[in-house]
Formats: sequence, C-alpha cells, structure tokens
Amino acid sequence: MKKIINHPDHVVTEMLEGIALAHPEVVYFKEAEVIARKEKSIKVGLVSGGGSGHEPSHAGYVGKGMLDAAVAGNVFASPSPDRVLKGIQEANGGKGVLLIIKNYSGDIMNFQMAQELAEMEGIEVDHVVVKDDVAVPDSTYSTGRRGIAGTVFVHKVAGAKAETGASLQEVKQVAEKTIANIRSMGMAMSSCVLPGVGTPSFTLGADEIEIGMGIHGEPGIEKSPVLPAKEIAKKLVEPILNDFEKMSGEVAVMVNGLGATPLMELYILFKEVTELLKQHDISIYRAYVGNFMTALEMSGASLTLLNLDEELKALLDAPCQTPAMKG
Amino acid sequence: MKKIINHPDHVVTEMLEGIALAHPEVVYFKEAEVIARKEKSIKVGLVSGGGSGHEPSHAGYVGKGMLDAAVAGNVFASPSPDRVLKGIQEANGGKGVLLIIKNYSGDIMNFQMAQELAEMEGIEVDHVVVKDDVAVPDSTYSTGRRGIAGTVFVHKVAGAKAETGASLQEVKQVAEKTIANIRSMGMAMSSCVLPGVGTPSFTLGADEIEIGMGIHGEPGIEKSPVLPAKEIAKKLVEPILNDFEKMSGEVAVMVNGLGATPLMELYILFKEVTELLKQHDISIYRAYVGNFMTALEMSGASLTLLNLDEELKALLDAPCQTPAMKG
Repeated sequence: MKKIINHPDHVVTEMLEGIALAHPEVVYFKEAEVIARKEKSIKVGLVSGGGSGHEPSHAGYVGKGMLDAAVAGNVFASPSPDRVLKGIQEANGGKGVLLIIKNYSGDIMNFQMAQELAEMEGIEVDHVVVKDDVAVPDSTYSTGRRGIAGTVFVHKVAGAKAETGASLQEVKQVAEKTIANIRSMGMAMSSCVLPGVGTPSFTLGADEIEIGMGIHGEPGIEKSPVLPAKEIAKKLVEPILNDFEKMSGEVAVMVNGLGATPLMELYILFKEVTELLKQHDISIYRAYVGNFMTALEMSGASLTLLNLDEELKALLDAPCQTPAMKG
Repeated sequence: MKKIINHPDHVVTEMLEGIALAHPEVVYFKEAEVIARKEKSIKVGLVSGGGSGHEPSHAGYVGKGMLDAAVAGNVFASPSPDRVLKGIQEANGGKGVLLIIKNYSGDIMNFQMAQELAEMEGIEVDHVVVKDDVAVPDSTYSTGRRGIAGTVFVHKVAGAKAETGASLQEVKQVAEKTIANIRSMGMAMSSCVLPGVGTPSFTLGADEIEIGMGIHGEPGIEKSPVLPAKEIAKKLVEPILNDFEKMSGEVAVMVNGLGATPLMELYILFKEVTELLKQHDISIYRAYVGNFMTALEMSGASLTLLNLDEELKALLDAPCQTPAMKG
C-alpha cells in the first residue's frame, strides 16, 4: 500500500490536525474529530460530516458562508453520535442547528441520535437528508438514493441563507428546496485502497469502467469498456435530465473528481456536459470543476446539476470563505 | 488507457475550451492555446505557461491578482514561440509584459524567442526563470535546477505587485526576490500515462517510492521502500532547509499533490512538515495544501517553502480571483 501516512489508525486524527494547522480560521476538537469555525456568531449553525476519505468533504467547507462544524468518522465509516453531538454544540450560536446528512443508514442513525441528545440539552436541532445520486434506488449502505457531491451545494446554499440571519425553519426550507433540485450521477475507472485494509475495495478490468458507482465503491448500473468523454457525459447527463420533472432552464453544474482524476479530464468532461445541456436548451449559470467530494484515490468523476431559481442563484453567489471553497 | 478524453490529439484544446466555459472571466484563443483575462487593465502583464498536464498550472492562475495569460503546450511539451507571442500580445496592457518561465530548456528557448518577436512589435518584455527544485543540479530537460510548484508563488507575488501599478522592472525585481527565496522538493509514488503514449512514463516497484523526482517523471536522487509520512517529510524538508543560506524564520508552505494523491495524505504530510519546521524555530505564515502543479495522475507530492519578508507577506495576502486560487 503506497500512501503518505504514518499508521492506518491515525489517518483521520493526523489529517484533521493538518487541516487545523493549515487553516487558522478553524479549530480542531480531537476527541470528537470535529473541525469547527473559530469565530462564532449568532446565526443558525450548520453541521455536516460522515465517513472520512471524501476530502475536502466535509471539513474543507467549514467557514464563513458554509458549515459551522464538520464531524469526521473513520475512513468510510459514520461518526458516532457523541462526536456529532460535539459538532452540534460547537455549531450552536443560539438560533438552532441544522444537520445536513448524506443518505447512508449509519449517518442517518448517528446524526439523528445526536440530534436527540442535543435536544435533551436544550439545543434546537433539525436535519435534512441529501439523496442526490440518481444511479440506483437503494444501495449497499442506503435505503433510498445515496447522498454524494450535490451535498456541497446544500452546504453552500444553506450556509449563505444562515448568514442572512434567517431562522432555523427558513434555513431548513431552502436546504430542502436545494435537495429537491439536485441530481447527481457518477462513474469510476479504478478502485481505492482503505488505509486500514490495504487492498483495493473492488476491481474493474483493465479497460473497464463502471457507470453509477457510489463514492464508497457501491455497485453502479452498468459496466462498460472505456468510453470517449462525449459518451461518458451522455451516460451521466441523460439519467439526470430524465429524473427532473421540471426544469427552469438554468443550472449550476459540478463536475467532481473522485480523487485521482486529472483536472484536464474533468474540464474535458465539463465541456461535453456543456454541449449536451445546450442541446436541451439548458444554460449554465455557474460551474464548479474540481475535487469536491472524493473517494480517496478513486479515479472517476461525478456530475451534479442544481436546477436554479433566483433565490438559489443569489445564495450560490453569496460570499464564502472556507479552506476548500472561496469566492 | 483509462482516461476521460475523446482523442489524445485533442486533450489540450478540449480542456482549455472547458476552462473558458467554466470560468467566464477568462477567454480562450484556440489557435494559440492561450487562456487570457477577459478584462484588460493598464498594468504590467504577466504571462506563464509550458507543457500541459500540470493543471491547474498555468491556466488556472489567470485572473485578477495573478497571471494575465497562460500559454499551453501539448502534454509535457513546451508551447511554440508563436503561441507564447499571442499570450504576450493578450497580456500587454501598455506597461510591458513579464514572462515567468519554468527552467526547462524547451520553455527557455521558446519563451525567449517569443520575447524577441514581441519586442520587434514594440512590446516591452522581460522574463524571469524559476528554478526551485533542489533535488538535482541538472536534469533530463533542464540545465540547472528544474522549475516546479514554487512557480505558483511567483505568479501570486508578481501578480499582486503588478496590480499595484508597479513598473515592469519593479515587478521583475519582486519576482526575482521570490525566486531567490523559494525551494522545493518532490517525491513520487506512481507514474503517469501521457494520453498520446498510452503506457506509464516510468516504473516504480510495488512498494517503491522515489525522492526528488520531477514533474515529468525525471529521475530523482533516491529510490526507497514506502516510508512513513514523518520520514517522507524529513526527506523533503531537510534538503530544502540545508539549501537556504539564510532564513527569516517565517515561511509560506505549499504541500502540492501531483494529481492522484488524496487530500487526506497531503494534510498528513503538511502536519509532519509543520512539526519539523517547529524544531527549526521556523513559523508558518500561510499554508497552501492541495493540487497546484500536478503531473497528470502521478501519485506523490512536493513541498515548497517560501522564505518571507514583510513585502512578500503583504503580496501573498493581497486579493486574487482566479479559477484555481481565490482569496
């Protein structure tokens, strides 16, 4: 196993220490594996998190205009309720806390238990569940659709809304609207190696790719020989468009690398996506191309479309200042 | 070969089209493979570039506070003088143009020829050469040290200086000062596949890494079995510190991924670098952890230290707004 690590048992702790050292605007709570904003303010607090190995998700999105705390589990494993509780406590600025949960059974269970624990402490907490992956109706670790890179749009939109001083229910409402307007679809070209395991999570043939694969290597819908970028774009765009009941004609696009995909390839894929959307008279209001939610060193990419209205556009455009997203 | 591309001959063009589509603040000149800022202003223009495959270098750094134009060659191949000339023409705002060249023989030759062509057109042009890689005194494609990720610091510092309305000579001076205060060192864990070749550029054993390797797979100084992050950090930090004649005690640190290295590992490496610098009483003023200058899907990382003074700190902190760097 070739990794720049010291010991498989310490990767999460050492990574989070590194994040806090590199970005002095966040603080690290070691026992709970929580990264939180250093400067607190009176606003609705936002908490997300989940298994590690998807960096920059979620610690990279802690900061002004996005999350107040990110809770890290072990690699590809949900954080325990007590860790999430610490995240809620740190995010709590007195106006309540919204949890943004990706739809995996472990996360749902642990975040909801943490919500109950926090409520017992008198903190007002609510939650939303992101299930943007249109590939499969149920999956290895989820009942219902998986939550993947579209979650970052929920962080951005809800984070911007919270900065306006909105109430918990208002922030929740816009998060739910965002979730209802997000669709994602991924594909993988290679596997990844969990530090504690040392061998690839799954295998693909030398010229084989998988469409619809999840960010933990969960099965997709179709294995195929390597396809040209144009064809890969179709395999991602079409199921997404078919899944929208109604579209405004204007979208935000995220082409997300899974960890080992050169930026060159992500931009080529983005160009093909652009052309397909044009054929459907859909224009791109804002584009995000890069590594937003990865799967360790998996090679591949996902596409997310966020169907926009004026409110969502304004919230996407609002300033943010986090380790992984600025602007 | 598993890549999200359409055809090896079109990767650079299609990538640059994708960049221009994703980032409406830049424009793409197809014949010359140049990405330039859309809004021009009366200031010293900055041009960089080189072979493609190092994304986000250099097109990702075109924008306010950094470059005015980036010229792309084919993958790992220098852009021709006529392409660089187009970059100079587009960057020219009437106060002269500075070329920031990485020290590779092809780039030196082509950028200098372009400089002469531009001067014949009456554009005032000067250049600086970045040679930050302390690994080897000469290399496969360079006489003298190679230019690697430290180049991004030169873009940032010179770009900020140019925004102040400084003269060409003033911008050149601060670029030279930056270059004199940068040291880098890299290591690779795996090879990369050029789209036009289809097979790995070099090979490393299943448990072998190479210290001091270049961003095109040029030989380094030492092959070794996989080492703990702590030891890898030492292999990078020590030759850099030994190479500085004098240090201020305050540095900017860049831990740069070569393309396929998970952000988790980059942050773990950064943490180890932090601890080593602390032992030398060196404090970190600002940290950059991510993929800044890659080598396609090579796995590995480089470390760059920029020895700071008050002027360099202020220029690093100045705002910038580019596809790959904002803040």
